[in-house]
Amino acid sequence: MNLFYHPGACSLAVHIALVEANIPYRLVTITREKRTGDGRDFLKINPKGYVPALEFDDGTTLSESLAILVYVADRSATLLASDGPERWQALEALSFMVTEIHGNFKPFWKKASDAEKDKARASLVKHFAVIAEQLGERRFLVGKTMTIADPYLLVMLRWAATHEIEVPPRFIAYTAHMNQRPSVQQALIEEGLATDDIR
Amino acid sequence: MNLFYHPGACSLAVHIALVEANIPYRLVTITREKRTGDGRDFLKINPKGYVPALEFDDGTTLSESLAILVYVADRSATLLASDGPERWQALEALSFMVTEIHGNFKPFWKKASDAEKDKARASLVKHFAVIAEQLGERRFLVGKTMTIADPYLLVMLRWAATHEIEVPPRFIAYTAHMNQRPSVQQALIEEGLATDDIR
Repeated sequence: MNLFYHPGACSLAVHIALVEANIPYRLVTITREKRTGDGRDFLKINPKGYVPALEFDDGTTLSESLAILVYVADRSATLLASDGPERWQALEALSFMVTEIHGNFKPFWKKASDAEKDKARASLVKHFAVIAEQLGERRFLVGKTMTIADPYLLVMLRWAATHEIEVPPRFIAYTAHMNQRPSVQQALIEEGLATDDIR
Repeated sequence: MNLFYHPGACSLAVHIALVEANIPYRLVTITREKRTGDGRDFLKINPKGYVPALEFDDGTTLSESLAILVYVADRSATLLASDGPERWQALEALSFMVTEIHGNFKPFWKKASDAEKDKARASLVKHFAVIAEQLGERRFLVGKTMTIADPYLLVMLRWAATHEIEVPPRFIAYTAHMNQRPSVQQALIEEGLATDDIR
């Protein structure tokens, strides 16, 4: 199975989840010209042109972070409860992050006016506060163990640091704790990212 | 169980899915001042302030369309395959629609410049083409029966009509077929929407 990724992109959340779930994968990069690291046209693999995308051994593909994370969770014993409030809280948080948080980072890497960036920044501050409230003083976003919502949150917090979005101080300890996790360390190293770099 | 909704909002997708799954619900509206139709402060129920939201009989709540639709699917026999390509294709399409399609409608109902609207319109045209390609000539977006991706797509197509976004002609027959479905008719009537109005 191939995971198409960019270092530090939201594909990093899938990467961490795959390590946690002990599912074998090969990492494949994409060039700016949308060629894959193994020399193919990425637009034929994912016509939408973005990562993450999984390519299964039978040649079929799966895109969209949330769908891939649920796929990985379905194949893991621990990353998403099979029923009950912890299942729904994790899916709710993940849905909120892929729409309201991820979406508001777009003005920071696409051509956008200062007004658009200011508006997005204000939304991000508000939305990270919702997640901080949900996290409280716990170690993971939902329940007592890591779910698929955690690696995604970690990636969003890395982006917040990169783009100097102020997030609640509660996330400092959360990020430090997540960064110490072996799966996170392994994924960061494999993507060529510094393991002490919370960006 | 209460479903908080606005007529024709993305809560309509949840409403249709609940009817399909034969899960009992009470519909509760929200005023502009964020009061519920039964006289409560909606921000205490969903601090994010938007619909859809489910309130269970024990007082707990669930927000985010995608999470709620998976909740409904888990309780239905038919709305989402339990494994295999059809499960992943439905979740992939739904994730794509809640992020890239729903997100690009925001400039049409919030204060936005003409440039922002033009950019969003171009993105929507491109993204609806991806979904049209996936639909092909079939009656449902994934497989041979309705999944949770279909009512969501129907709502997005209603919004496209409202905001005069040009979508591939393939969707005319799809919308007509979906609008004839008893669950869709029931939900439209209950929300006070004309059943022949594809907006």
